[in-house]
Parts: sequence; structure tokens; C-alpha cells
Amino acid sequence: MTSDTTDPLVIFTPSGKRGRFPAGTPVLTAARQLGVDLDSVCGGRGICSKCQVTPSYGQFSKHGVTVADDALSAWNSVEDRYDRKRGLAAGRRLGCQATVQRDVVIDVPETSQVHRQVVRKAASTRVMVMDPATKLYYVEVAEPDMHDPSGDFERLAAALAEQWDIAPVTAPLSVMTRLQTALRKGNWAVTVALHRGHTDEHYRILDLYPGFKEQRLFGLAIDLGSTTIAAHLTDLRDGTVAASAGVMNPQIRFGEDLMSRVSYAMMNPGGDAEMTRAVRAAIDGLAASLAEEAGIAPVQIMEAVFVCNPVMHHLLLGLDPVELGQAPFALATSRSVSAEARELDLSALNANARAFVLPCIAGHVGADAAAVALTEQPGAQDKLTLIVDVGTNAEILLGDRSRVLACSSPTGPAFEGAQISSGQRAAPGAIERVEIDPATKEPRFRVIGIDHWSDEPGFAEAAAATGITGICGSGIIEAVAEMRMAGLVDASGLIGSADQTGTARCITEGRTHAYVLHDGTAAGGPLISVTQGDIRAIQLAKSALYAGARLLMDERGTDTVDRVVLAGAFGAHISPKHAMVLGMIPDAALDKVTGAGNAAGTGARIALCSVAARAEIEQTVREITKVETAIAPAFQAHFVNANALPHATDPFPTLRGIVPLPDVSYNTRGQDEGGSGRKRRRRA
Amino acid sequence: MTSDTTDPLVIFTPSGKRGRFPAGTPVLTAARQLGVDLDSVCGGRGICSKCQVTPSYGQFSKHGVTVADDALSAWNSVEDRYDRKRGLAAGRRLGCQATVQRDVVIDVPETSQVHRQVVRKAASTRVMVMDPATKLYYVEVAEPDMHDPSGDFERLAAALAEQWDIAPVTAPLSVMTRLQTALRKGNWAVTVALHRGHTDEHYRILDLYPGFKEQRLFGLAIDLGSTTIAAHLTDLRDGTVAASAGVMNPQIRFGEDLMSRVSYAMMNPGGDAEMTRAVRAAIDGLAASLAEEAGIAPVQIMEAVFVCNPVMHHLLLGLDPVELGQAPFALATSRSVSAEARELDLSALNANARAFVLPCIAGHVGADAAAVALTEQPGAQDKLTLIVDVGTNAEILLGDRSRVLACSSPTGPAFEGAQISSGQRAAPGAIERVEIDPATKEPRFRVIGIDHWSDEPGFAEAAAATGITGICGSGIIEAVAEMRMAGLVDASGLIGSADQTGTARCITEGRTHAYVLHDGTAAGGPLISVTQGDIRAIQLAKSALYAGARLLMDERGTDTVDRVVLAGAFGAHISPKHAMVLGMIPDAALDKVTGAGNAAGTGARIALCSVAARAEIEQTVREITKVETAIAPAFQAHFVNANALPHATDPFPTLRGIVPLPDVSYNTRGQDEGGSGRKRRRRA
Repeated sequence: MTSDTTDPLVIFTPSGKRGRFPAGTPVLTAARQLGVDLDSVCGGRGICSKCQVTPSYGQFSKHGVTVADDALSAWNSVEDRYDRKRGLAAGRRLGCQATVQRDVVIDVPETSQVHRQVVRKAASTRVMVMDPATKLYYVEVAEPDMHDPSGDFERLAAALAEQWDIAPVTAPLSVMTRLQTALRKGNWAVTVALHRGHTDEHYRILDLYPGFKEQRLFGLAIDLGSTTIAAHLTDLRDGTVAASAGVMNPQIRFGEDLMSRVSYAMMNPGGDAEMTRAVRAAIDGLAASLAEEAGIAPVQIMEAVFVCNPVMHHLLLGLDPVELGQAPFALATSRSVSAEARELDLSALNANARAFVLPCIAGHVGADAAAVALTEQPGAQDKLTLIVDVGTNAEILLGDRSRVLACSSPTGPAFEGAQISSGQRAAPGAIERVEIDPATKEPRFRVIGIDHWSDEPGFAEAAAATGITGICGSGIIEAVAEMRMAGLVDASGLIGSADQTGTARCITEGRTHAYVLHDGTAAGGPLISVTQGDIRAIQLAKSALYAGARLLMDERGTDTVDRVVLAGAFGAHISPKHAMVLGMIPDAALDKVTGAGNAAGTGARIALCSVAARAEIEQTVREITKVETAIAPAFQAHFVNANALPHATDPFPTLRGIVPLPDVSYNTRGQDEGGSGRKRRRRA
Repeated sequence: MTSDTTDPLVIFTPSGKRGRFPAGTPVLTAARQLGVDLDSVCGGRGICSKCQVTPSYGQFSKHGVTVADDALSAWNSVEDRYDRKRGLAAGRRLGCQATVQRDVVIDVPETSQVHRQVVRKAASTRVMVMDPATKLYYVEVAEPDMHDPSGDFERLAAALAEQWDIAPVTAPLSVMTRLQTALRKGNWAVTVALHRGHTDEHYRILDLYPGFKEQRLFGLAIDLGSTTIAAHLTDLRDGTVAASAGVMNPQIRFGEDLMSRVSYAMMNPGGDAEMTRAVRAAIDGLAASLAEEAGIAPVQIMEAVFVCNPVMHHLLLGLDPVELGQAPFALATSRSVSAEARELDLSALNANARAFVLPCIAGHVGADAAAVALTEQPGAQDKLTLIVDVGTNAEILLGDRSRVLACSSPTGPAFEGAQISSGQRAAPGAIERVEIDPATKEPRFRVIGIDHWSDEPGFAEAAAATGITGICGSGIIEAVAEMRMAGLVDASGLIGSADQTGTARCITEGRTHAYVLHDGTAAGGPLISVTQGDIRAIQLAKSALYAGARLLMDERGTDTVDRVVLAGAFGAHISPKHAMVLGMIPDAALDKVTGAGNAAGTGARIALCSVAARAEIEQTVREITKVETAIAPAFQAHFVNANALPHATDPFPTLRGIVPLPDVSYNTRGQDEGGSGRKRRRRA
């Protein structure tokens, strides 16, 4: 860049970057020299139109520049052709064609930025910036010369180095075999899909097309859960999701929860390979159906990024998960894994597609927790933040700028509706939200698939069609919390009798009681109730969760946290108030408890759309302090102490005043079946 | 290394490297610090015994050192155990166990050197030094620690970095999946087979074994010819050939010569893929049979290195060879190709075996010529050296330290016995050597598979069993040259009649004559003769060869060369004298014309056994000046001028005096069918 003060001044917005350039300098050239984020796939040949800019004419007091109408060169034939063929919005110019003539202010619209931010539906601390590992480059390659023989591939590599500053580059044989034809068909120009490694500056050609091709490239962000597999087919240019779908994890037939699957692998030689085949086939099928749904060709899918817990991580990669089931819970690998998608038997993608699996944090804290860390960035927070991702295991992160700690806690599957008498997965027919009137003790609830509350008009008709089949994870949590608030359950977790509570919904079951949420027996449906056993299961789960969080707080040397984030698909559905009534999480101001939606899935998308994010999470994971609950004596103590539900008199600053907790006690002789909660005598 | 002059002095032989080390320093440590080439697989743990040394006791005037009997520490329990288990030769010590106590001279036997030289059967300019890309390393890995969780793979990588200074290292998923079991079975020690790239410092784990394993690793050096595929199964530790075998190239059914195969690819869609499948299957079969013959497991084969001409190069790699059949003869790639063996559909090797294909020099000058350059090193010669590798195309190198040039010349298949009336491949029954008595004009010859000359006792019986079926490439060259020396053929290439030559063996065939080498018709066998057409075919072939060599000499600006090397399996069988009588090669002193045996195959073995050689040839090929015969007008001129056989009066300093060339002329009217040779009138 020259700095002759008589040269025209160019100011780019919104970056504000400015510099003087000789008259005749293309806008794209000026942008590149100033480091302005202006896209180009064709390298300035007027083909790709990615470098569109909007020059601003008139007086600009903000920048102190008057822009004349002829500040840029006149509309030229390339722009004209492009406008006729594809249309150029009013006021737009092609940055590679328009040249600077006089002082000018040029706006780079967001669609012309390479690293544009992606607007995410869910509010989050993290801004998602496009920086995908796989991108298109148009390149013009020298023709072969008998006098100076060199290979087609070497001339392509030289052109990439010269025109894009990209080197070294390699190509798998399957791409190399198509190079000759593509170059000749494209008249010595090709568009290549290049993949950049996140740990090295290694570029790999995944695919190529003759001439200039505006091929849309896609990636799969896959949240591989124990129960469900969710995948988002994502456009690698702008991060938009073209299609989403989920399927049940077919490994469920080998074991409902993770430890059953580890046992299956231990007891059945080849069992792990069997489970690996099953999950890979399911993912492959998911990829194929997503491509079909979005109307794209499978060859357009260039990458798959995975987040999952450690057991699923191992079963996906074909690693024996047995070590994860026993101390010292050793991972086969704790780095991220970059592989070819076909090494994972994924055939419904481009033949050279890449797979990237986020790193696990520890033997019990998975790549899903790493993805949550990528999304929520606890290490970038000023406030001490507790992040809880609730699943069969709760994965817990605690940290701020100074340090991040992580652990997992064996909550068991109660929070997912398993081991609950009327429990079921979150599916149509499941009660997902519950309210109980403290005066009448009558419930109202919502059912998945029905738009009304149970006491609203139209509900009965809808329920007759859908059926009310059970209660899912969020439903059971709300039900228990509401029962506590309505005085149906005491602080030790005991359900009162009909006499004690004054409602016939409290029925006797053996030596304990249950609360009937919905009696569908008259219509041949189920009786949906919350039993004493259900309360105990929730108590165990929430104690484990609470104990894990407390353990990290001990390690950190604190009794309070500033923020609580409930992550996970499940976390999205838990109301913070109910979580605190149950004592699932440490005390925090209610407005500081937020749900983060599917933060793990979002982390997968971030890693899919940003190669820098991959390097970042690899580094972050290394720096996290790993805390192992299984060997921490304090964990057991916290676990036992956390068994009770909050008391009316608990020093619970946030909850008190918002939620009245009745001071009841149903601890009658013979009724409590030895629940391990602390018991206090109450004044009658 | 300390340099305290009171420390014991250690002198290593044969390197002569010396240094002072504190008493108690292990010999292996001293060797490493001095850069002495002393092997170790186990890293000094007394397991592998690769570091055996021979201390020399007594007076050593050469080094001026008196070595006391206790110059090294006493024989220890590790050495004792090793001696009992596996035996340690008298006088040998383990370099990792014996420690320096006083001044000592220590010999490193050749078997303990990593980079030991390999004794080659054929004399050659190049010394082969072991430096294989794939080697074994024994490594002890830290156990997992719950308090500081890390993956098994990361601890292995850390151990390799610490114990062997090897980083970064990667592993394919198929190796990663076996790591956990291997580490635990080996009690946290494994032996890994590591492959090092020749262009980067990238290490890749190809295989691993629990604990210490003295696994022998092998590689295949494959000379992939148009007609035959020859493979040598080579021990990667010492370069010895465990088994060799050859098969016909199954592509012959698609076309006898290369251009027919290129045509087949052009005319038949998918024809190139068909040929690729055929040749890969043949190589895979060859690998399997070699492993069986050598009694090793296929998983022990870690690498395959290929040399081949450009068309075979492309057909092996699955690249369309059509471009090689037309100007500008563009290669798909001119660099070496590193790939996974399974990318070439080779399954009879280790699943993670690597393939390396030497670089082609130009569209007509193949990786086989590059391999010849690696073996013969024209660029390292003081004398200007002409290297000719004769096949269907002759590939020609000319050079010395200042510069190396290369071209190929379209000799056609006559030198291989094709397009010759009685021609056949070099196989049992083929006449391979010929002598003709200048006085009697009677021939004697040798036949492949028979140990006697045709005029020796026992020949008739052997011939009755074997049969005499035809004449191979070396046979036809000797026959034509001998006919010229015996005066049966004149300088223009015409065969005389029975009257003109005085022998009834010159028979009339139409308007030309033929010379009968062997008449087997009485026994139902063939009549084997050299016809006028055969002479013309040889003249065309040798003119092309000569013209190529001359073209390089023109480029170099010289009329003479200092040395001529005849390479190729065929070159090994051509007698220099006969080659010069035919005028195949430029004039040179007869004792400066040597055969180099299968220099291309040797180059494959060198590249297989030395990763440094791979880098070297990659660089060498880039520096070679490529000369294209097809566009050089001088080539045509040389070709036409070279058509004649040498004249008796030619200024042929070397030949004259050794070989009398009769001054005959059979250029009678109507007999010459328009041969393009220059014609001179002779004195009668």
C-alpha cells in the first residue's frame, strides 16, 4: 500500500479501516491490503460476486469525507454481464471490478464478509463467527508445457500458493484421479473444496469441479446422545441449518443406559464392535435422510462434527468403552479426533468428507461437556458461572476467567423419565409441565403434542386423540416441586396421606402414598401418579447433581456462584424455580439461573463452522481442572446431605419470599422406608 | 557431555568419534551424545540387544590408549539374563548396560549400526544405507491417573516424545482401537511400528504390539513393467531380500505395448479403471505369494515402493493415461505419491501399510528412470555418463555433477523380441546369445533354460526336452550384430543372398533374404531365422535410441561421453560390443560401457530402505533438465542419420581394431525396399 497523501482515501465500513491507494486500485485489492473482511471465491475475476460492496455517495460528516459520484470507476462490462445473468442489487458494485478514483467510503454488507456472525436463535454468551474448515476456492491453473514438464497437480498446487497463499496442499488419490478431466473441461480453471486442519496449516482437497462452480457445501453437526442422535445439516457458507432430524440411538437395544452398554461390551466378545456398527449405521441413515430432506446431493456434505459423552465417543470411534466403566476411567484418547468420515463407515457423505470429534474432558466428562464449554465459555466469564448439563450423567462446569473446573455426577436416568413409575421419554402424550394449586391441591398440566393446558377448553378433545401416556423428565421434576410447594410432600420427601393433605388425590399404595396427576382408567388409559418411589429416585438424582456442583465449589473454595446455566435439551425444559425448589442446584438469585438450550449441539455447530473454534476447545479442554467425583470423599458427604428437599426454614435467600414452602412433616412411623435424607423434628 | 579431562576417554570405532564421560556413563548414552551410529529399539532397557558393542582390551597404539580389563563395568544381571535367554557372542556387551569406568576403545559391529550399509550383489556406484521409513520403537507409557486424566494415546505420544524425541505422532483409528488392550497386556509398554514421512517430520503409527516385540518388518520393492511385475520382499532392518517373484502384467490382455493400452483407455469408457483393477489385483496376489514363500504374515509387510513408466504409473494410481498419449504429454502428478496401500486396493499387506511411488521425470520419462537415477546417480559423477534403460521406450539420462538431462525415445518393442519374425519374450526356449563364425558363417547360440552352447555336447538332448521356440530381445541384437561382423549384412542393413555370402543359410524370401539360425522343422519345431524385416525393425529401434542419446548430447553441447551404462533387465543382457556394432549407443571406449543390471528395481529397493533417498530423488527429479524428443527437430535428423549399421570405414575409434566390420554391399536393385538409411556406394 502506498501512502502518498495525494492518493484517494478509502474508508471501509463497518470496520472503519482506511488507507490511501493509487487511483485505479480495485476495491477488493484495497480491502485485502487493509485486512478488511471482504469475501472472494474467484480471487477477483468477476465470477463469484462474493465481493459485493456498497459505495456511499454524498457528504459524510462522520468520516469527514465528501464522496463524489465518480469516486469509483464506472460500471463495467463484467458487472453488466453479472447483473444481467444473476442480478446485482441496486447500489451494489463488484469489489474486484470497481476501482478507486477519488476519496470514497465503502460499506461491506454482512453477506460479503467471510467471517460474518451468525444470528443464533437461542441467546448465548457466544457469538458464532463463520470460519469453516472447508471452503471453496476458484483457481486458474497454468496449462502443461512440453518444454517445462510438470504434473497437473503440481501446477494446481503452485496456482493455489500464488493466487491464494495456500500451501502445502495434498489430495487423496480419489481426487487426483479426477483432476485431469476437471482441468481440461474447465479450460484450465477449477473450483476446489479445501479442508484446513485445525492443528496444522495442512490443506487437503476434498473435492473439485471444472471451472467456477458455486457449489453449496454442507456439514453435519451431530449431538450423539445415549438415547437420541440429533443432527443439523448446516450450510458451511453462512451457518444456516438446512435441515434437522433426530433418531433414537439404536444402541438402546444393547442397554438403556451407558453402563449397561459398557457391561454388554464386557460380557459379549465383539459387543462393542456390534454397538459401533449400529450407531454408525444410524448416523449414516440420518445423513442420507437429511440430504434428501434438504434436497442436496450427499457429495455436498463435506464434514461431520460430533459431540457426545465419553462412552458414546468410544463406541462411535470403535474404541472399547470398558475402561470407562472402571477406575481410573482412562480415555483411549483425550484429544480431538480428526479422521476421514469413511473411517467411521459413513458413506452418505462426500467420499472424502472429514469427521471431527470434539475432545473429551475426562473419562466421565465428555466431548458434549467440551461443546458446552465452547458455547458457554465459562473461562471467558467475569462472573463465577456454574453450568450443568443434565443427562444420565450430569456434566458440570464451574469457572470464570481465572480457572475452569469440570466433573460429572452419576445422576442416573430419573431426570430423563426412566426409573419413574409413570415415566416415559419426552414424546407426544407425555406430561411435561405441572402446576398444583396450593389451596385445592388440584393439578393442571400440559402434554407434549397438545397446545392447551389440561384445564383449558379443547384439551379433552385433543387428549382423546393424542392420549396421555406418562410423564417425562421435566414433568416429574415440576410435579415433585409443585407437590412440595403445595404441601403434599414434606422436606424429607414423604408424601402425605389423603387425611394429612386433605385431598383424595393422595392415595395409599402399600405403606406409602402416591399423588394422582391424571386418572385415565375410565377411558382405558393409564393412572398417572407420582409415587413415593418416584420421589426417592428424584431425590437420589438431584442429590448427585447437587453434590457434584458443591464438590467443584469446594475445589474452587466458594460457597456461592454468580450464575447458573442449565444446559442440555433437558435443561432447556426445566424451570429454574422448580429446580431450586427441589434443591437440584446451589442457591442463586432466580434471575441468574438461565437455560442455555442445547448448548452441546450448539457447540457442535460452532466447531463445524469455525476451524479456530476447534483449536480453541482443544486448548480449553487441556486447561480445565478435572475433578473426579468417584474418589472425592466430600462428594459422598455432599450427596447424603443433599437428599432432603428444601425446608421452609432453610437459609435459602433466593427462594424465600418467592416460593412459600409449607412447614409440614409426614414422617410417620413405618411410612418412611429408610430414605437416607437428614431428618429434623418439626414443631407440630 | 562433560569435558572434564580427568573423566574416562571413550573412543568408538570404526567412526573414530571420541569424548570424555563421567565414570558410570552407559556406553549407549556416550554413543548417542557423540552421534555414534549405535542401534537401540528398547531405548536402553536391556531388552532388544540391538546395542551390542565389542570393547577392545589391551594396548591400542593407533588410538594411543591403553584399555584396562576393567575399563567397562562388570557383566551385569541384565546381560546375564539376555545371554542365557538368547545368547550373546563372546566379547560382546550390551551398550545400555555396560558403563564406562576408564579409558576405553569400543567397536560398534556392523549389525549394531542403524545406518549399516547393505552389500549389494550387483556392482553399482551407489552404496545402500539402511534408513527405512518404518521402524520399531519400544516405549514405556505412563499409567492413567484419575487425578490427572489424559488419554492412553496422549500418554503414548508423550512417551515417544520423551523417550525417542519423536513428535508429532498420529495413529489411524484402526490402530487407536487396539491401543488400550496392547498397553494393558504389555503392562504399560508397547512396541510401535512408526512410519516417517519423507517430506515432513510426521510420524504415523502403522502397528503396535504389547510389550517388547522383536517383530520383523518387511517392505515390497516393486518394479512395475509393461510386461512383467517384479517384486522383492525386503527386510526393513537389514535390506536383505527374503523372497522375490515376478508375474506377467495382466494388462497385456488390453494391449501388448503401452500405447495400445492408452488407446484401449481412449476407446473404452472405464477401460482405464479396468486396467487399474487388473494390475492392482496382480500386485496384491504377488504380495500374498511372497509372504507365503518367505513364511511371514502379511501384517508384517508395512510398505510397498513402486517404480514404473509413466503409463503404468498412471494406471497403477487410477489416473487416466490418455494425456500421456498425446502432446503435451502432461502427467497428472510429477511429485512422488505417498498413499495408503489400501488406496491402491492392496489388501495382502498390513491394513495400515503405506505405498510410495517414485516421481516421474516427465510425461515420457518415468519413475523407473527416476529410480535408475537414484541407483546410478548421474548427478554425482565426475565423468559425463550416459545411462540408457531400454524397454518399449528407451529412457535416457545424461549428466555429471554440473547437470543431468533426461529424455525418452520411442524405440518400440523390437528390443524386447516383439515385432520380430521369430521373436518371443525372454523365457525358456528362447535363443538369447548368438555367435557367427566369420569364416564358415555357421552360428552357435545359447537357449534360455539350457546350460550349454548349441555346439556343445549335451545340448541336443536338453533342446529336445526344452524345445527351441524363438529368439528373445538380447538374441536378436546379438544375431544382427554377428551377421554384420560376419559380412552377412552390409552397412545399410541388407542381408546378402546365398551366392553373395557363400552360405546356404542365407535363403531367399520373396525379394529379400533371411539368415537361418536354427531349422527345427524336421522335429516339428519352427524355422528360426533373421529376416530382412527383422533387421529393419532393429534398425528403427536402435536409430531411435541413438537419436535420443545424441539429442541429449546436443543439449549438453558434447560429441562424446565418458561412460555408458546400460540399465534395465534387458540392458543386463546386451553385450556392449554388440550394442556398439549395431550403433545403438554413441561411441565410447568399450571398457567404459557397462551393464547396471536392474537399476530401476534397485532404485525401488533403495527408496524402500531409505527415507532420505526418497527426499533425495524427489529433489533430483526436480533438477533434471527434461528434453522432449517429440518436439525436437534435431531428433528426426539424428534418427534418419542413425539408420545405417556402422560402416567399415566409420570413424569409430573404439570399435575399430576390436571388431572388423566387412566392407560389403548388398544394395542390389529391387532388393532394398526403401529403407531410410543413408546409402553409400562402395568400391566393389
